[in-house]
Parts: sequence; structure tokens; C-alpha cells
Amino acid sequence: MLLDDLETPTPVIDPDRVDHNFRVMQDYCDAHGIALRPHIKTHKIPLLAQKQVALGAVGITCQKLGEAEVMAEAGITDILISYPLIGAAKQARLVALARRGCTLTVAADSVAAVDTVLAAAREAETPIGIYVEFDSGGMRTGVRTPEEAAALVAHIQAAGGPGFYKGVMTYPITDRTGPFLTAFRALADQNGFAVGVVSGGGTPEYRGAHLVPGLTEYRVGTYTYHDRATVAAGAATLDDVAMVVLATVVSRPEDGLAVLDCGSKTLSSDRVSPAAGEGHGVILDYPDAVIIRLNEEHGIVDLSRCDRKPQIGERVRIVPNHVCVVTNLHDSILVVRNGAVVDTWQIAARGCTR
Amino acid sequence: MLLDDLETPTPVIDPDRVDHNFRVMQDYCDAHGIALRPHIKTHKIPLLAQKQVALGAVGITCQKLGEAEVMAEAGITDILISYPLIGAAKQARLVALARRGCTLTVAADSVAAVDTVLAAAREAETPIGIYVEFDSGGMRTGVRTPEEAAALVAHIQAAGGPGFYKGVMTYPITDRTGPFLTAFRALADQNGFAVGVVSGGGTPEYRGAHLVPGLTEYRVGTYTYHDRATVAAGAATLDDVAMVVLATVVSRPEDGLAVLDCGSKTLSSDRVSPAAGEGHGVILDYPDAVIIRLNEEHGIVDLSRCDRKPQIGERVRIVPNHVCVVTNLHDSILVVRNGAVVDTWQIAARGCTR
Repeated sequence: MLLDDLETPTPVIDPDRVDHNFRVMQDYCDAHGIALRPHIKTHKIPLLAQKQVALGAVGITCQKLGEAEVMAEAGITDILISYPLIGAAKQARLVALARRGCTLTVAADSVAAVDTVLAAAREAETPIGIYVEFDSGGMRTGVRTPEEAAALVAHIQAAGGPGFYKGVMTYPITDRTGPFLTAFRALADQNGFAVGVVSGGGTPEYRGAHLVPGLTEYRVGTYTYHDRATVAAGAATLDDVAMVVLATVVSRPEDGLAVLDCGSKTLSSDRVSPAAGEGHGVILDYPDAVIIRLNEEHGIVDLSRCDRKPQIGERVRIVPNHVCVVTNLHDSILVVRNGAVVDTWQIAARGCTR
Repeated sequence: MLLDDLETPTPVIDPDRVDHNFRVMQDYCDAHGIALRPHIKTHKIPLLAQKQVALGAVGITCQKLGEAEVMAEAGITDILISYPLIGAAKQARLVALARRGCTLTVAADSVAAVDTVLAAAREAETPIGIYVEFDSGGMRTGVRTPEEAAALVAHIQAAGGPGFYKGVMTYPITDRTGPFLTAFRALADQNGFAVGVVSGGGTPEYRGAHLVPGLTEYRVGTYTYHDRATVAAGAATLDDVAMVVLATVVSRPEDGLAVLDCGSKTLSSDRVSPAAGEGHGVILDYPDAVIIRLNEEHGIVDLSRCDRKPQIGERVRIVPNHVCVVTNLHDSILVVRNGAVVDTWQIAARGCTR
């Protein structure tokens, strides 16, 4: 099936660019002696996780238990859940996952989150590693001070296993990451524990990962496909972008306006920083056009800066602002090589919010 | 199963409030002699569409063919597709839908979109109605002038069936709707055609529908559940809101900050107008809290204005900014009565962007 015959809107990917992006990141990590632990949130596809591991990744990162369950089912054996697990229901699922024989690590930033993992490890009679998450200015989860991090390590070690302290984790890496680690290392020396893994993350700033003193592992997801945000951050060029949304012009109600059949149900409403550009994505075929507004099924395009303007029925390719959230809106993705669809991949971990 | 045992994040609905909201809108339309044609984009659940029809709706509205296919499969027999259909693939699907015996209407705002319907009707040998969409200032699809609308009617009538002109449609209704219709009626008289159905839409402004001269039909979706935007618009109160997202506090990294397990993958990134409030939804249990930022799985909550603050593990209920996009992010929804889950409904038309 050729692109012109496809139903739109639909995300399409270039598998060769995906392979290239996987190779570039693995090479970067290899060159600097950093373990790569890719985040599957961007693609949510077991086959791609398997490729990442085959290329040299030490394992994968999942944000939610549901994603980890899908990936474990597909045979991935080393999984980090980079998110605090709270409550009896989550604990029960962690026990079940641990009993499958996966090498599991879970991030935690509070006694409650640590205790979920400790209790699950006891119940499953299986070691489960714990990363203590700290904040580098991202202002979401993560303990705010090295002292809090050291106190959580002490709490874990006092429990005596099989849950065990495995390292520290932060996202994204910033100027604050190094100073935090220095202070934390001093506390580790003082309290007599080994720092272990130091895990950072983020595609936009990945080229600075090796400059973080003592960083041993890096978690990245968006590099799979790249998007407008990672291109704007200089982590890639538009030629590296491996996923675009194919859309159709369904209306030209005014000379300066087009309506595309992709709205927020296809592209999401995620914005980029003003420095990265205006609107809701880059239309590769009309780079001067601006997707000024999205309704659920309408992409409203300002053509006033375009010399050439698209006609009703024309197909356009859009680089989304944020590709991970686009992936989550679609059940499957078309794999395209030389203008023809060669495969359809199910986005098996789509919608795993729990 | 009780609410406290549920896995979060999850949307939950109150079926009695849904019934109440359905009743209120049907009563309003009945009182004013307006046909109600509810938009299923909000719930995407066949059972609810069937309830709406049973209560008196003349049929339903779908935005995309995929939604219409799901609803036809569930036995809904009168369907408006309120969106221009462009291209051979869409035409083929419209033919298949028409051959099922549904009473079909399709909106169009260009010759190309009209021609899709005309060709499908000929191929299916079945009448398909056409609504000519006009713009009331919404600045998306819809012809901009009464003259363009009349020209499309002439184009349809020149084709001689079985596709036929059935009426005009706009969204939302505004101050411009009345004057457009007056001018269009004059052209209809002049050209010797009947205006037919006059279809308006939109929950926020629905109480003004009967003030639009000659309006015969109204399309509304959000009234099913209501949300922060429709409450802010005065179309409902918080007591009418029938769907909330149940979330768990997973981190309290600072005294003034909480992190919820619902991010943009659960709530979407849709904003509301500044007049409707700050942030990404109302936390019913902590009305002074502000969800200041969403990452995909993190809802960052500013608690600085709260006297009382939630603890890690606590459940909270969130009224989303825009409920239709939340529905589209979830495979199923929990039906809750008196604090207990009484049913789970599949969101059968989720993800139907094509």
C-alpha cells in the first residue's frame, strides 16, 4: 500500500531512521562508558525495546507498572520502573512482576514508596533494587536534599532485604545534578554505603551526560523518533526525525487558512517552548505554515506566510511537538520504507497509565 | 469493589448524574421544539448513545467515520457525520456505512467534500443527506459566506441525487449565526430551495439555542458529563459533573507541593480560558490546590494556598478541564454508585481519529 492510499490521520515511522537513532545513542553511551537504559514511553512497542537491548542497552525504563507488565510479557528481563509505587494494589502487581523472574528496579522518593518495594520484595522472596530519586530542579518527584536521600538509603538498609538500595536517579540532568551528587557522595562515605548506580535521563540534554561526574547510566526515550522539541534542543536534526503524522487537508475555508484532519486527538495539545517555534508541530511540506490551533479533530493552519498553499485532499507530513504523547493516542503505527507501508506495529503499551 | 481499593489513575462516572444531564438537555430541547442530536465524542459509548436516543434524541452526531462505524454496529440508525470527508478511502467507508441501512447525513463545506458524499450515495444507491457547514466565527471548517453556502446547495441539487441537500450546520452558535441565517434564507427564497434543517451546537452556550431564529436541531456532547469548561460557562454546576478522574498522591517532595499519578496521559494537556481557572483541573477535595503542570505521568500540584494538605497515598477526585479528550485517553471507565464500582464500560469509540 502506498502512502497516497492511506487513511489519515495516521502516524508513520521510518524504521531505518529509528535504527540510526538507536545506534547514535548506543555509540554515545559506549564511547563514554555509560550504561544505556532506554525509556520505552516514547515507542511503547516490545519489538523496539528488544532491538534496544540487542544493541547493547542494559535493560529498559518504564514509567508505570502497566508498561512494565507489557514489556515483561514480551520477554524483556531487566526493567526499571522509574516512578513511585504507592498502595496495596500496586504492591500486589509488583509482587507478581517480581515472581516472573525479571531483574526489577523501582524508583522511590519517600518512605511510603520505599516501603511498597520492600514489602513486595519480601512477599515475592526476590531481590528488588531501589533507586532513590532526587530532584535536579525538575520540580516533580525526587527528594530535594542529599540528606533526605541518605535517610532513605538508611531506611532501606535497615530493612535488611531482599529489597535493596541500588543507586540514585534524577531527571533531567541540570547544573544542580553534579553538586547534589558531590554532597550525596560525602554522606555515603560518612554513613558507610556505596553510592551504586547514578542514573540520569533526558534526550534534549543527552550530549552532556558524560559531563555529570560519576554518572553510570542514562535513560532516554524521545531519541527513538525525535520530535520538534528535541530538534529545537539541538539533540537531533529534522533529518533524524523518524515519526511523522500524515494528515489530509480537508478544508480551505479562506485563502490564508487550511484545516487538517488531525487535531488534539492525533497530535495532543502539548506545546513546545516559544524558542522551539509556534503552534502544534512542523508541517514539513509547508515549513512557513503554522498550526495555530487544535480542536479534537481539526488542525487549523495559518497559511498567510506561505507562497505556495496546499489544496483540499493534499497530504502533509507533520513533525509533532512531543512525540511520546502522540504515540499514546494511537493503537498502531505504520512502518514506511520508500513510500510504501511495509508493516504495522501495535503500540502494545499504549494507555498504560496505571 | 470500593473506591479505596481501585487502581489509579482512573476516570469514574456517576450514572445517575449522566441520566440527569441527559434529561435536562432533552427537556430543554423539547420545551423549545428543537431536535436534539447528541454528539457522542464526549462519551464514545454505544450504551449511552442508545440511552440518548431512547430519551428522545433524533439520532446522534459523530465527528469521524470510525465513530459512526462503532455506533452503527451497536444499532444506532440515524447518524450525522459532522465533518468533511475527503478522499477515496473515506468515500469507500461511507458507501459501506450507507449500505448498512443507516439514515446518514454528512457535513461538507467544499465542492470536494460534497462530491465525496454525492459519489458515495450514487455508489450505495442510497440517499445520504448533506448539511452545508457554515462558520459562525469558530474559524475552523465551514463556508464563510451565505453565497458560498447557496452555491454548494446548487451544486448538490444539480447532481440530482441520491445525495441530497438536507440543511445547514454551524458550531458554535454565536452572535453571527442569526445574521448568516437571515442572509442565507433570502438566497434560498431567491434560488427556490427550502433551507431545511438548521443545526447548531455546543454545550457551553446551549441555553441560548432557542434564541437562534429558525434553529431546528442542536448538537451537544459535553453535557453528558460536564467539565470545568462547561461549569465555568454557566452551563452546569460542579454538582452536575458526572465524571471525575480518581488519582493518588504519590509524592509530597516539598511542604507546598504534591505529585499526583495523573499526568497528560490521563488528563490531557487541554487548558481552559483564564477566566475558567488556573491549571489542569479542579481537585474537588482540595479546591485551593492548583495543578500547575503536567508531565505524562506526573500532575504537579501547588498546595501553597491550602490550609489542609493531602498525604502520600491519599485519593483525590479531579474535574478535568475538558472531559472529551480525557475519555479518548482511556479504554474503559468505571461506573460508581454509592462509593462502589457497579460496572465497567468500554469506551468503544476511543481513538477513532479516522
